[in-house]
Amino acid sequence: MTSVNGDGGGHAERAGFTDLGFARVDTGREARQGVAECVYAPGKRPAEITAIVGELLSAATGPVLVTRADPETADEVLAAHPGGSYDARARLVTWRPARPRAFSVAVLSAGTADGPVAAEAAAVARAVGLGVGVYRDVGVAGLHRLLDSVGEAQAHQAFIVVAGMEGALASVVGGLVAHPVVAVPTSTGYGAGLEGVTALLAMLSSCAAGLTVVNIDSGFGAAMAAHRIAAAVERGRE
Amino acid sequence: MTSVNGDGGGHAERAGFTDLGFARVDTGREARQGVAECVYAPGKRPAEITAIVGELLSAATGPVLVTRADPETADEVLAAHPGGSYDARARLVTWRPARPRAFSVAVLSAGTADGPVAAEAAAVARAVGLGVGVYRDVGVAGLHRLLDSVGEAQAHQAFIVVAGMEGALASVVGGLVAHPVVAVPTSTGYGAGLEGVTALLAMLSSCAAGLTVVNIDSGFGAAMAAHRIAAAVERGRE
Amino acid sequence: MTSVNGDGGGHAERAGFTDLGFARVDTGREARQGVAECVYAPGKRPAEITAIVGELLSAATGPVLVTRADPETADEVLAAHPGGSYDARARLVTWRPARPRAFSVAVLSAGTADGPVAAEAAAVARAVGLGVGVYRDVGVAGLHRLLDSVGEAQAHQAFIVVAGMEGALASVVGGLVAHPVVAVPTSTGYGAGLEGVTALLAMLSSCAAGLTVVNIDSGFGAAMAAHRIAAAVERGRE
Amino acid sequence: MTSVNGDGGGHAERAGFTDLGFARVDTGREARQGVAECVYAPGKRPAEITAIVGELLSAATGPVLVTRADPETADEVLAAHPGGSYDARARLVTWRPARPRAFSVAVLSAGTADGPVAAEAAAVARAVGLGVGVYRDVGVAGLHRLLDSVGEAQAHQAFIVVAGMEGALASVVGGLVAHPVVAVPTSTGYGAGLEGVTALLAMLSSCAAGLTVVNIDSGFGAAMAAHRIAAAVERGRE
Amino acid sequence: MTSVNGDGGGHAERAGFTDLGFARVDTGREARQGVAECVYAPGKRPAEITAIVGELLSAATGPVLVTRADPETADEVLAAHPGGSYDARARLVTWRPARPRAFSVAVLSAGTADGPVAAEAAAVARAVGLGVGVYRDVGVAGLHRLLDSVGEAQAHQAFIVVAGMEGALASVVGGLVAHPVVAVPTSTGYGAGLEGVTALLAMLSSCAAGLTVVNIDSGFGAAMAAHRIAAAVERGRE
Amino acid sequence: MTSVNGDGGGHAERAGFTDLGFARVDTGREARQGVAECVYAPGKRPAEITAIVGELLSAATGPVLVTRADPETADEVLAAHPGGSYDARARLVTWRPARPRAFSVAVLSAGTADGPVAAEAAAVARAVGLGVGVYRDVGVAGLHRLLDSVGEAQAHQAFIVVAGMEGALASVVGGLVAHPVVAVPTSTGYGAGLEGVTALLAMLSSCAAGLTVVNIDSGFGAAMAAHRIAAAVERGRE
Amino acid sequence: MTSVNGDGGGHAERAGFTDLGFARVDTGREARQGVAECVYAPGKRPAEITAIVGELLSAATGPVLVTRADPETADEVLAAHPGGSYDARARLVTWRPARPRAFSVAVLSAGTADGPVAAEAAAVARAVGLGVGVYRDVGVAGLHRLLDSVGEAQAHQAFIVVAGMEGALASVVGGLVAHPVVAVPTSTGYGAGLEGVTALLAMLSSCAAGLTVVNIDSGFGAAMAAHRIAAAVERGRE
Amino acid sequence: MTSVNGDGGGHAERAGFTDLGFARVDTGREARQGVAECVYAPGKRPAEITAIVGELLSAATGPVLVTRADPETADEVLAAHPGGSYDARARLVTWRPARPRAFSVAVLSAGTADGPVAAEAAAVARAVGLGVGVYRDVGVAGLHRLLDSVGEAQAHQAFIVVAGMEGALASVVGGLVAHPVVAVPTSTGYGAGLEGVTALLAMLSSCAAGLTVVNIDSGFGAAMAAHRIAAAVERGRE
Repeated sequence: MTSVNGDGGGHAERAGFTDLGFARVDTGREARQGVAECVYAPGKRPAEITAIVGELLSAATGPVLVTRADPETADEVLAAHPGGSYDARARLVTWRPARPRAFSVAVLSAGTADGPVAAEAAAVARAVGLGVGVYRDVGVAGLHRLLDSVGEAQAHQAFIVVAGMEGALASVVGGLVAHPVVAVPTSTGYGAGLEGVTALLAMLSSCAAGLTVVNIDSGFGAAMAAHRIAAAVERGRE
Repeated sequence: MTSVNGDGGGHAERAGFTDLGFARVDTGREARQGVAECVYAPGKRPAEITAIVGELLSAATGPVLVTRADPETADEVLAAHPGGSYDARARLVTWRPARPRAFSVAVLSAGTADGPVAAEAAAVARAVGLGVGVYRDVGVAGLHRLLDSVGEAQAHQAFIVVAGMEGALASVVGGLVAHPVVAVPTSTGYGAGLEGVTALLAMLSSCAAGLTVVNIDSGFGAAMAAHRIAAAVERGRE
Repeated sequence: MTSVNGDGGGHAERAGFTDLGFARVDTGREARQGVAECVYAPGKRPAEITAIVGELLSAATGPVLVTRADPETADEVLAAHPGGSYDARARLVTWRPARPRAFSVAVLSAGTADGPVAAEAAAVARAVGLGVGVYRDVGVAGLHRLLDSVGEAQAHQAFIVVAGMEGALASVVGGLVAHPVVAVPTSTGYGAGLEGVTALLAMLSSCAAGLTVVNIDSGFGAAMAAHRIAAAVERGRE
Repeated sequence: MTSVNGDGGGHAERAGFTDLGFARVDTGREARQGVAECVYAPGKRPAEITAIVGELLSAATGPVLVTRADPETADEVLAAHPGGSYDARARLVTWRPARPRAFSVAVLSAGTADGPVAAEAAAVARAVGLGVGVYRDVGVAGLHRLLDSVGEAQAHQAFIVVAGMEGALASVVGGLVAHPVVAVPTSTGYGAGLEGVTALLAMLSSCAAGLTVVNIDSGFGAAMAAHRIAAAVERGRE
Repeated sequence: MTSVNGDGGGHAERAGFTDLGFARVDTGREARQGVAECVYAPGKRPAEITAIVGELLSAATGPVLVTRADPETADEVLAAHPGGSYDARARLVTWRPARPRAFSVAVLSAGTADGPVAAEAAAVARAVGLGVGVYRDVGVAGLHRLLDSVGEAQAHQAFIVVAGMEGALASVVGGLVAHPVVAVPTSTGYGAGLEGVTALLAMLSSCAAGLTVVNIDSGFGAAMAAHRIAAAVERGRE
Repeated sequence: MTSVNGDGGGHAERAGFTDLGFARVDTGREARQGVAECVYAPGKRPAEITAIVGELLSAATGPVLVTRADPETADEVLAAHPGGSYDARARLVTWRPARPRAFSVAVLSAGTADGPVAAEAAAVARAVGLGVGVYRDVGVAGLHRLLDSVGEAQAHQAFIVVAGMEGALASVVGGLVAHPVVAVPTSTGYGAGLEGVTALLAMLSSCAAGLTVVNIDSGFGAAMAAHRIAAAVERGRE
Repeated sequence: MTSVNGDGGGHAERAGFTDLGFARVDTGREARQGVAECVYAPGKRPAEITAIVGELLSAATGPVLVTRADPETADEVLAAHPGGSYDARARLVTWRPARPRAFSVAVLSAGTADGPVAAEAAAVARAVGLGVGVYRDVGVAGLHRLLDSVGEAQAHQAFIVVAGMEGALASVVGGLVAHPVVAVPTSTGYGAGLEGVTALLAMLSSCAAGLTVVNIDSGFGAAMAAHRIAAAVERGRE
Repeated sequence: MTSVNGDGGGHAERAGFTDLGFARVDTGREARQGVAECVYAPGKRPAEITAIVGELLSAATGPVLVTRADPETADEVLAAHPGGSYDARARLVTWRPARPRAFSVAVLSAGTADGPVAAEAAAVARAVGLGVGVYRDVGVAGLHRLLDSVGEAQAHQAFIVVAGMEGALASVVGGLVAHPVVAVPTSTGYGAGLEGVTALLAMLSSCAAGLTVVNIDSGFGAAMAAHRIAAAVERGRE
């Protein structure tokens, strides 16, 4: 039991996690899932993030990631732990990106405003070693932009489709390709778009069979889903 | 003031409507809008519908329609007012369909289950004199089915797009054609489709500019919107 | 495939679009739909908007529009591409407005607070060449204000009805006129108005047959719907 | 404390209520509010209703009402307590209706399908002694039907406005008259009407000042609100 | 038709309203409903409000109100039209309050945080000439606070009950008194309170018969409902 | 791994559970939580319930419960496992009810229609050995019915408050007593009651501190919460 | 263009699809995605299904599936096309199941009532050639049931997790394994479960990184997602 | 009746409460429920809070609490009433904390971002005399962190489980322990987390029997529920 008075004084090592008092760092996750615990920045103080990253850098051997980090937080944590890099558009801080793996993912986005979410998906995928092909602004209002690219994009092993508003791009792509398709609804839009809920519901209701969906704006979640698929492919090769 | 005790004993003619007691038939609507008041069957008793239709047949000169009529209701009303016809798939009873007008509408539907709504749109459009081209089962999961037809369909003057689930067909069509597009969300689907609400929200959030939307499953509303557009075209020719 | 590292370095021309790296400008849209792709400003950086506008000005021959632009963005983009103008109330930047077409639209708004949305509808309609008649503050709480104007307004070829709160104006207008009516719910109001969702649902549930509806606060969408109808009328005259 | 085993064996009189075991009949309500407790039939067994009615008939001196009663229930309860009457359209059973009071209410309904709710409002109002004027089918799609009646209707002391779909009738009436207006949304409609929720929200968001609203389909609630207003008027005369 | 270019240049008098260009002031409302049109400040520019108030002050003879006005707006409008007063807690600007009428209303509020809404109800009621009794902080968590006051409060002719969170106060008051009760849900609370929607739904679902409800936080709406009831009582005395 | 072909052929005992193929009976739950796993009947076939009950009767020593059982299911399962009993109002089948424990709970319900949920709470509480006091029909529309009983009811150790519609009873009771109060919203009501969601949200938003809430209509959940509290009291006595 | 009058008279072959009049069978889907178009039975008439299946059996060479088929429909279609089989629990009709592929999926379900959805997932997966391991009733209320199985289950290449109510099983499994996890929310539960919407939202909000989600009750969708992953693994082996 | 003009001039003592004009302080609550009325800071002015706290400090003898206080408010109130203390993370001001009681509660939180809510639960529990054990960051994505602590935590008499996102921790804990479990959903998360509504619904739908739930982010409510349980245990010891 950690004390309620001291906010993080302790540093206890136990089976599979380190107790920093304010956080229990899951030190077994890299062994269990191939990537160390990723740190979601919102709601955490920079000092807390710094301490968690320090623990992860020493307990793990591969990539360490902080997601949704604003520039100030990134600066502070990178100052304490040099050697990492910050992707401002993706809001991602990364240390020790993984070596390239024989699996790449096509990241398609419907509009320019979906860019930050697509950037997060691409940056996280690269950090965990996946190849990435980016196809921006291929929304269905100008269908030829998509049709022009979809043949080339099928050289990748999986698709991440990022779209807001009505999210129709996911259905169209899902109908054209045989690959795993992870759809990411975004909060782009207004009014009836309901902050991304409409795109989310639409993607879940897609007429294209076998689409899967992650949370609104979760480029991170889509990349981690691709990581899981990549791991399955790697195991399949053994 | 009609009496609360007697349910329809009266039959009073006033400026622009006839008071049947249980209903005030808007006898001026044909002059005002080109089509007499249409009778929405649910919640009305067959005897009430019969009386209203009788009034409309005498007060108007053009088509008279009863929508969402089940077969029993249709039989009873048609027995009282012969000369009409019933379209079971569209659930529509029609008397005195209008003469063909120089305006036709393409009705596209995404899946076979959207058929009854598309049928209502087509039947109402024909009843008010519009030409109709029907393109069924052109949903985006097999995009080539749509692309095969969309060129031909552009010979029509307007589009009605009927789709449930995620409703993506409306966006794709809206991006391909320059015509007025009236989107009809349907309650086809399950779970996250939320009885048609998802398709409705998605169509309203479409990335294709200038789409308009009517109520869920309202083939009738879409056809009447087409009627309004046709009237504008006709006035434009004068 | 564009590179994920370079944010917009490329400038590739392909069939029907130009790939700026961060955006694929749909250069075929003017030919396809009569108006070039319109740029929705939120979520895009001024430099991105500037580049897209530049591409559109060279690839298209008619009007180029940026919607929902704040004054700073407008200034920056207009400085790069002189000759346009900014309508602050409508938040619209326009270059090369279209020549007047033989089609005009009546824009009715329910209350003073609905003004910006009505202004966007009017400004976009004018930019694409439509005539516009504006009837402000004709909400149903003082019905005589509407009845005073509706006769005159019927000289136009179509109606755009802008209303927040309960959106009743759309139903009343829809019952009075035979024209195409495009209803725009606004986020005016509070509490049970649910940021415009109530007006949206009410307009979709209207008892007036043949109303169509666009997204909340989308004066742009309504004007583009009018543009589609105008094009149908123009084709009908040929 | 009543026993959980015996479902209604007891019959205990206490200050202001009688404990029937399965129900505590509020015998003080007539003195407190002018009308005895009204029995809402759904979820109660006919035998339970019969016992409660018996208690009310002996403890109160004025009208006794059972609302939302289906014909079978009404028959069974009326057989046990003769002298009452059943209004099938209003689904109301009444014993000892009150003597006419010097207050009457205009009940307006938008469409024929709103009839049962309007009938409940009218029947309950009459049972508690109010005069009632019924104006049916005056929805805003044919505004002249309303304008024809609204002058006459203002001879009443209050308005009850019953409307489904988008509920616009309430706003229009609220803007025309100076009377108290109680709006009753109904579940008439489909799709975006959301089982009456849209009309409810629209009436609450009305641009007409001073409208009040009761629950969906609650003709009973509106009549009881009128009863409260009538009592205020009666006290005002003293 | 007002011009879209000039924002308010015109000043046209027509039957029952004055057209300021940006607004149509309903000059007939005082005669129709006993109180001139009230100005809802949000979404209007101070100069617009000033012009409308000027028109109302000249066209009407009784009270003129601006609701939801922030201090800056109030200062600017009062500077242009001296003689009014501003109630900061109620956010109300008033000119020429009505003479006291023989009708008073009890305003009960559940918690201290509901104070601004109760203050708006009280201030508007006073401005239109009603007497007001204020009973603050009588929420049901300490029921004796309510029971201590409810006897005294029944000397008023109507009740306005203001409550957020679960809104239970309305049901309890509705069960205790025979008066008209207008319930005002407030946005006080958090989480499951859903910005006042929970209190709204709860008040509409109340087990106390004959409660009526207005929009969330609408102290104004409740006071205007009381004004309508007061008018009915006054007519009843004649 | 159980086979997908055979639906329940297996009967494997493992640490803490028995694998029946179609179900894994948690045989350790009685030791872990004081009551064996309870069987929720909907969605299970009678034969499945019979098999599970058989396993529980042999693996556990205390009470075995089947909840939400319709009469046909109850008959079939009781025929296979005699010695149990069925409470039709509570829809509960019970074998081997626990011996009375020194802890009792007051079950208060707001209206007669809330009876079945209150009956389930009472029956489950008794089955697990708790004393039960039932106070029916004490809703706040007649507050004196509650005030008459609440003193006596405080002799119990905890309260379960069952209410639909607006659920105000929970707040009032929570303000009067110092006991643990478990609130059960019910689906009693219509329209704005939203099938119990309104009562649920209202109870969660209660102004009375320390109320807790269970799922809609879950008399079972409330009784099990009381069981957990009783166990804490029993451990406190040791 | 197919005729609106004749419902299915035509049989036209075009590039990539066959037009049956009432349906356009996507004959290219097997080549494009590895499995022929699957027929969703609800909303289609048995004769329509029979015709579509006939077309698919001749145009494709691999498995043909009809999902959500009730027994009567299954009988009728199987009578017309012998050689298929019906799985009543999964509501699936299958012809020509695929040969076993070197990829298997673990299907875990939380409770017995989730059985039909898990059965559909398993049956569809088998029909398209995947191996399946079924782990039933491993919900988190008895965590040891899951922990007992999860090691063994990791021998499979992907996980499908089927759970209703709060859907917590998906998060727990997602935290334990490195595999692709496709979560299927079910409509099991009541009240706050909101017909599966709660489980859906919870799975999308999971704290376990890289989970993906399909529509409520869509065992079919999950199996098709597994098929897409299996295909990626197969391509990875080449 | 307090005056609407003077905002708090009065100071009247009545049976069980003190009327400060702007608030009625429930001076009987400490006797009734063991803890004086707690002051919820949002929506109250610092001067109002200061006055209420002054009244409570003189009328009660035990702890006095102000919840959700920002630092500025805390400073101002503490300056007026020295001797209290402020817990910035819990946003709680406390005077005269209660003496330790023989009851302690385990507070478990799922993630670091849930810290403030857990801190409020812990701080309020301590203020009212309960022992507290804090177990942070034990979310189910790393289940071993929870399993490591849950044995030790069972030495407490009750559990408070604080979790956002999908809230699965509550179900897992509820299945492992026999204690009363009060679940607190938090607004941690984004998108489909719906500001805590998803966690709320999930906890209410939990498959673990006997969980109870409080409002989103209400650490205060959970601690007060624990206080009620502690009081029941204390009474049980007598």
